[in-house]
Amino acid sequence: MSKQVKVTLPDGNILEVANGTTGYQIAESISKSLASESVAVILDDKLCDMSIPIHNDVSIKIIKRNYNNALELIRHDCAHVMAEAVQDLFPGTQVTIGPAIENGFYYDFAREKAFTLEDLEKIEKKMHEIINQGLPFEREVWNRKKAIDHFLKIGEKYKAEIIKDLDESKEITIYRQGEWLDLCRGPHLPSTKHVGTSFKLMKVAGAYWRGDENNEMLTRIYGTAWRNDKELRTYLNMLKEAEKRDHRKIGKEMKIFTFDDEVGPGLPLWLPNGSVIIEELEKLAKDTEQKAGYLRVRTPHITKGSLYEKSGHLSHYKDSMFPAMDIDGNEYYLKPMNCPHHHKIYASSPRSYKELPLRLCEYGTCYRYEKSGQLFGLMRVRSMQMNDAHIYCTENQFKEEFLAVCKMYLKYFEIFNIEKYEMRLSLHDPDKLGKKYVNEPKLWVKTESLVRKALQEGNINFIEIPGEAAFYGPKIDVQVWSAIGREFTLATNQVDFAIPSKFGLTYVDTNNIEKTPLCIHRAPLGTHERFIGFLIEHYAGNFPLWLTPTQIVVIPISDKFNEYAKSVHNELSNNNIRANLDLRNEKMGAKIRDAEINKVPIMIIIGDKEVNDKTLSIRRKFVGDIGTIKLDAFIGSILKEINNRENPKNN
Amino acid sequence: MSKQVKVTLPDGNILEVANGTTGYQIAESISKSLASESVAVILDDKLCDMSIPIHNDVSIKIIKRNYNNALELIRHDCAHVMAEAVQDLFPGTQVTIGPAIENGFYYDFAREKAFTLEDLEKIEKKMHEIINQGLPFEREVWNRKKAIDHFLKIGEKYKAEIIKDLDESKEITIYRQGEWLDLCRGPHLPSTKHVGTSFKLMKVAGAYWRGDENNEMLTRIYGTAWRNDKELRTYLNMLKEAEKRDHRKIGKEMKIFTFDDEVGPGLPLWLPNGSVIIEELEKLAKDTEQKAGYLRVRTPHITKGSLYEKSGHLSHYKDSMFPAMDIDGNEYYLKPMNCPHHHKIYASSPRSYKELPLRLCEYGTCYRYEKSGQLFGLMRVRSMQMNDAHIYCTENQFKEEFLAVCKMYLKYFEIFNIEKYEMRLSLHDPDKLGKKYVNEPKLWVKTESLVRKALQEGNINFIEIPGEAAFYGPKIDVQVWSAIGREFTLATNQVDFAIPSKFGLTYVDTNNIEKTPLCIHRAPLGTHERFIGFLIEHYAGNFPLWLTPTQIVVIPISDKFNEYAKSVHNELSNNNIRANLDLRNEKMGAKIRDAEINKVPIMIIIGDKEVNDKTLSIRRKFVGDIGTIKLDAFIGSILKEINNRENPKNN
Repeated sequence: MSKQVKVTLPDGNILEVANGTTGYQIAESISKSLASESVAVILDDKLCDMSIPIHNDVSIKIIKRNYNNALELIRHDCAHVMAEAVQDLFPGTQVTIGPAIENGFYYDFAREKAFTLEDLEKIEKKMHEIINQGLPFEREVWNRKKAIDHFLKIGEKYKAEIIKDLDESKEITIYRQGEWLDLCRGPHLPSTKHVGTSFKLMKVAGAYWRGDENNEMLTRIYGTAWRNDKELRTYLNMLKEAEKRDHRKIGKEMKIFTFDDEVGPGLPLWLPNGSVIIEELEKLAKDTEQKAGYLRVRTPHITKGSLYEKSGHLSHYKDSMFPAMDIDGNEYYLKPMNCPHHHKIYASSPRSYKELPLRLCEYGTCYRYEKSGQLFGLMRVRSMQMNDAHIYCTENQFKEEFLAVCKMYLKYFEIFNIEKYEMRLSLHDPDKLGKKYVNEPKLWVKTESLVRKALQEGNINFIEIPGEAAFYGPKIDVQVWSAIGREFTLATNQVDFAIPSKFGLTYVDTNNIEKTPLCIHRAPLGTHERFIGFLIEHYAGNFPLWLTPTQIVVIPISDKFNEYAKSVHNELSNNNIRANLDLRNEKMGAKIRDAEINKVPIMIIIGDKEVNDKTLSIRRKFVGDIGTIKLDAFIGSILKEINNRENPKNN
Repeated sequence: MSKQVKVTLPDGNILEVANGTTGYQIAESISKSLASESVAVILDDKLCDMSIPIHNDVSIKIIKRNYNNALELIRHDCAHVMAEAVQDLFPGTQVTIGPAIENGFYYDFAREKAFTLEDLEKIEKKMHEIINQGLPFEREVWNRKKAIDHFLKIGEKYKAEIIKDLDESKEITIYRQGEWLDLCRGPHLPSTKHVGTSFKLMKVAGAYWRGDENNEMLTRIYGTAWRNDKELRTYLNMLKEAEKRDHRKIGKEMKIFTFDDEVGPGLPLWLPNGSVIIEELEKLAKDTEQKAGYLRVRTPHITKGSLYEKSGHLSHYKDSMFPAMDIDGNEYYLKPMNCPHHHKIYASSPRSYKELPLRLCEYGTCYRYEKSGQLFGLMRVRSMQMNDAHIYCTENQFKEEFLAVCKMYLKYFEIFNIEKYEMRLSLHDPDKLGKKYVNEPKLWVKTESLVRKALQEGNINFIEIPGEAAFYGPKIDVQVWSAIGREFTLATNQVDFAIPSKFGLTYVDTNNIEKTPLCIHRAPLGTHERFIGFLIEHYAGNFPLWLTPTQIVVIPISDKFNEYAKSVHNELSNNNIRANLDLRNEKMGAKIRDAEINKVPIMIIIGDKEVNDKTLSIRRKFVGDIGTIKLDAFIGSILKEINNRENPKNN
């Protein structure tokens, strides 16, 4: 063992330090303040404790508490602190597991009684005490048997079970904070003090031990934790706003969709208002795809099982499919995806390079089995309609086609006021070739590099995520954030180098040689269900004019003006503007209020002056009264706004 | 028994004739020529032999050979004549049954060898001989046992079996023509001479004895028979034309749809050209329904079995449904009809009379199980998309709503050049109440009379057909005839007085009292599958401009003119005109021929002159060259034709 090791800093400088020096000591050697602000180090791409001794040459990155990477540590440590608080306050409660998750953490406890909201308050208070003590998180490596014995002795049978199931080759590490300790892989912050106080316990839920419904039910406490109070406040406000914008609530109020027990869970019935939104989205997709040279097709929703054996769905995806129906001795399945049908349309005639790229699109209806406990409004359903397309192209055409798809996404983001998005290039995992992924190692590498290059050359921002590819090729998952900052996975853009040859899809090239095309699977608007669910939250139901179910309400001030109001309403309808006429025997105020509740963006108020001058008084949501205007001019400007699918930020 | 009977003639005159007088004698008493032209009589609504003695007071109508009613007799007798000819030429062949059918007749024979086309020629020749002999058809009533013995003795085991199975109370009647005789209920023409010579044997097919696939296979000969050669010729020409227009053939040539064994029989895949037609039909329906105040909805394609138990589909219609899928312990079915889902949408909020009529429409996708042997191109499929709607209305609104639906049909007929149609009011059969029909005798009578009155007051021509109603109410089946005179059942318009109350559908009336609405089920464009199948034959693939997949091909005479051709093509595409650009390195003639094969209605030819003058030369299918025109003017006139959905008769 050498006495010195080389530590490479992010700027390329190399420090020579004594073997066994810790990250903390290195930070301290740079500056005291750096050491005090730091919470962890990244050694050769691996996040580690500050206190871990360095024994080899490594690159180092010092993580300050205000870095993004610190968040997961804060959340994980918060879970440890919570577990200590719980065991302190509620003796006899056993711990099980407590990971960091998106926005926070949870910990599952074994306890007969569930925790109450009052309990959570007490636990929070105790957590602040523990944090205030500034107890260092100390890492210990234990002998396997000693660990099992220890946990059994103190009555923690779940922990003992976890250790028993751990791979024998793995080190058993324990993190200790003062008296309290937990089995944990780490890493952790330097001390409980570093957890900070920007956390909140959110709710209690039931969870099965190891997620298996045959096991005991545990009690889970969810918490959220952030780097500072501003982040915490922003998050809590976002949740409050998300609750107000809950798509199930607004969907009901605006009569967009409904579910019915007798039809079945996860099978939405789209009410007339929802169907208007669907039709407008389809029109947008059709217009966009027509201009981009796509050809529309229509395919049935069931198919013989043999087709899904060929495509690999039955071997890779059967759990998400509905059960088979036996018809004339053949098994038929509801289709979970449209790809095989589009491939069959490709295969229905011999193809030449002159026909490529061939872009087949369809708002295809698919059925996927989701467990009933996982169904959630429009976000997790069993029947869905996808803005699907498959682009068959040569390798030379691939880059242009792939980028055109990415750019179509960007265009849609603009139309829907989506300002924050991220493209995630999901790659294969070489360890899972032949299992989760088709066993074509060379093709994986080649295709992934094709996609990466296309994205880079197109100046598309993206991050890479290993182990998340589709089974037939790499894919891009598109994450978007709603207006209130919630993240959604909406759409997907996938490359398929495997299935076309399985389906025997070919074209003859310029030299009359048979080749196999590449296939791009893409669905920029995702499913109607999820996309409309997203849009409801994103717009808080205040859809842009072109998309909103009722665009205008015509309100006469009294029934003297009904005739003129009717003629205005007629004229609007004749121009395919979705207008209602409110002739009810109600007060003006009530009519305006109702229009507001129904989130109708424009009201036309008709009184004496309007009838005499042959004008309209316009009241626009988020703007207020915008004065009087002649009917023709009004229709002209409204049609322009609708036809251009304008999207003023109005919510 | 009185010696005289009173016979009432159609003009109301009453003849007193001797008991036992025959129809023939009465005809003769009126005029010799009438007697010689007549072939049967209708006695009190029952078609009878001319030779039957009259023993009671009756009304009489004498049927001449050129009446419509004579056709069935001519066809049935032709079957008898054919059977005699077959047994004469091919001794040992057994007869089974031989009815008149639409356009002709068939007879099923038991024989080891199938008949060849040459055999048919010989049989036809022999038939002419038998007809020429003018043998009278003679009716005899036989003793049951004697009849069975006779047929067994001459080796006709099928006939013997038929007689054994006949209801004991029934008279066994035999019709004899010369030496040959057959078990037959009659009636028949006076003699074989009356069959005439306007017949033709068409084809040989296999058929199971009694239609049961477990029985022996028989050999069926089909023939067609008419009153005169002109009718025969017209029919044969229609068949020839129908073969040319076969929707399966044209559908393939024009790349409208395809089937794929791996997807499954009866499940059409719509190719891009077919999808264009579908989209245009949907646009037409949406435009029409929007103007008529319908609201669009969208519903899933599967549902819990309990919903179809409630609706009665599982008890009345299960054989036509796909098998159940078990999901979380519930049986789910692919929906065979959309009604229950629309009812569920009606039921999703409390309804007031102010909301009625509520017209919910959807291009709903349904799945019906048809035996694979009965599948036929687009005409009999297993997956279909229906132009469906359900109108919920009060009894007072019924007439207006029902008539509006009928008038929508008439409007569609005009748009699609459908000149011959018939509305058939299908009524219930009181004997089948509680079995085929919901057991509400009073409501049946009331609703049928409501519909009858509506049709009468609306001056809609219709005929009434008992025993063909839907299980929940009377319906109108709309028959249409294609341009070549073939009949199709396309659409349906049904009244439902039973299901709304089963589903607990209600509204509160002006007095705040809960009432049950009536429901009209209607589908004027039927299914995409059958309607497009019909349209292909009707137009021989030469769809009107608005509906045709490719509207225009732009053809430059040489590649010198490619740039101008491209700019013209661009301009057309920008105006959403479906235009192709033919830049192939082919001769003009070849390009024009290809456009004609693909049934593209308009060609734009671009040469020197057109480039210099900035004009287009237009060549229109069925019209020829129609001169040169400026691009703007051309686009204007084409858009007008498309947007008005003009339908010149051009095929």
